[in-house]
Amino acid sequence: MKIPGEVVNRLTLYHFILEDLNEGDVYISSKKIAKFLEIDDSQVRKDLKYINTVGKRKLGYNAKELKKAIEEKLGFKKTRDVFIVGAGNLGSALAKYSTFKDYGMNIIAMFDTDPKKIGTIINGKEVFDITKVGHMVQKLNVDIAILTVPKEYAKGAANYLAGSGIKYIWNFTPCILDVPDNIKVWNENLIGSFLQFTNRDEVEDDKNDDGN
Amino acid sequence: MKIPGEVVNRLTLYHFILEDLNEGDVYISSKKIAKFLEIDDSQVRKDLKYINTVGKRKLGYNAKELKKAIEEKLGFKKTRDVFIVGAGNLGSALAKYSTFKDYGMNIIAMFDTDPKKIGTIINGKEVFDITKVGHMVQKLNVDIAILTVPKEYAKGAANYLAGSGIKYIWNFTPCILDVPDNIKVWNENLIGSFLQFTNRDEVEDDKNDDGN
Repeated sequence: MKIPGEVVNRLTLYHFILEDLNEGDVYISSKKIAKFLEIDDSQVRKDLKYINTVGKRKLGYNAKELKKAIEEKLGFKKTRDVFIVGAGNLGSALAKYSTFKDYGMNIIAMFDTDPKKIGTIINGKEVFDITKVGHMVQKLNVDIAILTVPKEYAKGAANYLAGSGIKYIWNFTPCILDVPDNIKVWNENLIGSFLQFTNRDEVEDDKNDDGN
Repeated sequence: MKIPGEVVNRLTLYHFILEDLNEGDVYISSKKIAKFLEIDDSQVRKDLKYINTVGKRKLGYNAKELKKAIEEKLGFKKTRDVFIVGAGNLGSALAKYSTFKDYGMNIIAMFDTDPKKIGTIINGKEVFDITKVGHMVQKLNVDIAILTVPKEYAKGAANYLAGSGIKYIWNFTPCILDVPDNIKVWNENLIGSFLQFTNRDEVEDDKNDDGN
């Protein structure tokens, strides 16, 4: 059964809650999970059906089992190698963000155009010349790139990636990339998030809902 | 009319496209916008109804007018002052991210617990002791905080924010915060994004859809 994107999003948040539970909390109820996220508990139960988990009457879900079931279903243990393109502030911050690894994301190298950055090591990841990205994609069999270059370099970097063999671009730039159809782009729209949550009075809240 | 969150998200992406147009492109069609984002053009037309914009037959939308209409509807020009709590890698990267300002987000100060960071200036923003956050919220009338502390400090920082007068927390930590109901938390779930887009074959694509 395909899992809707919003459900994947919420399952990840449930996992954060489960990670944070005290050792003594053997069971957790859908009500408790729902309260943390200020959503309806019927939503939690509906989401958890996607991972074939059923709670026990009056007790709730076994926290350890639930955590494991989410991990298996969402593939946390299936490590994915990733490149970061753009070794500036944001790229470096993401390269240093240790939580990614816990969820299966393994950053193995970075790319930039700046001769001062090329050859440096950021949190154990070497920065390579962007012109080498195609070669490295083939050599290391990587299919995911995180794009964190400044806005004005987004198109140039996307051109390098277009012919590189990369299949997924996680785009943190405020630019819409024009890449071949076989490359999937995920726009991490921070501006959109900001506008959504700060204009809440005017904006319908569907982040934690099931749709419109 | 309330605008659904997903529509706000897409309108922001349309704005990125309009920003990037050549001077000579007076009109843009819903088809062209849709092609950039690999979505259906009927979706674009539906979204643009929220900002009361109607295209001209055969020509499409006047690009400048459309851009301005999105800016007005989403409040880009209504500047919001923001604090960053956590002057580490991610907090510093966001403090240096110039695009935020173009969309109405004005970062005015940062907070941390590390004596080595307190008193330093990051991209013109002073880092203050976290214990001063309540005082500064009142003094500067700020109601939005971006939380970028390491995972293990998330709860402590949230406690400081709980009593500070902050109304919105943009949470970049992989923790679910337990704050009073009057504080709205927006979880910027990077892990969830990563899992959604890298598991695309198994996950239903609703990021660019209208819901489920």
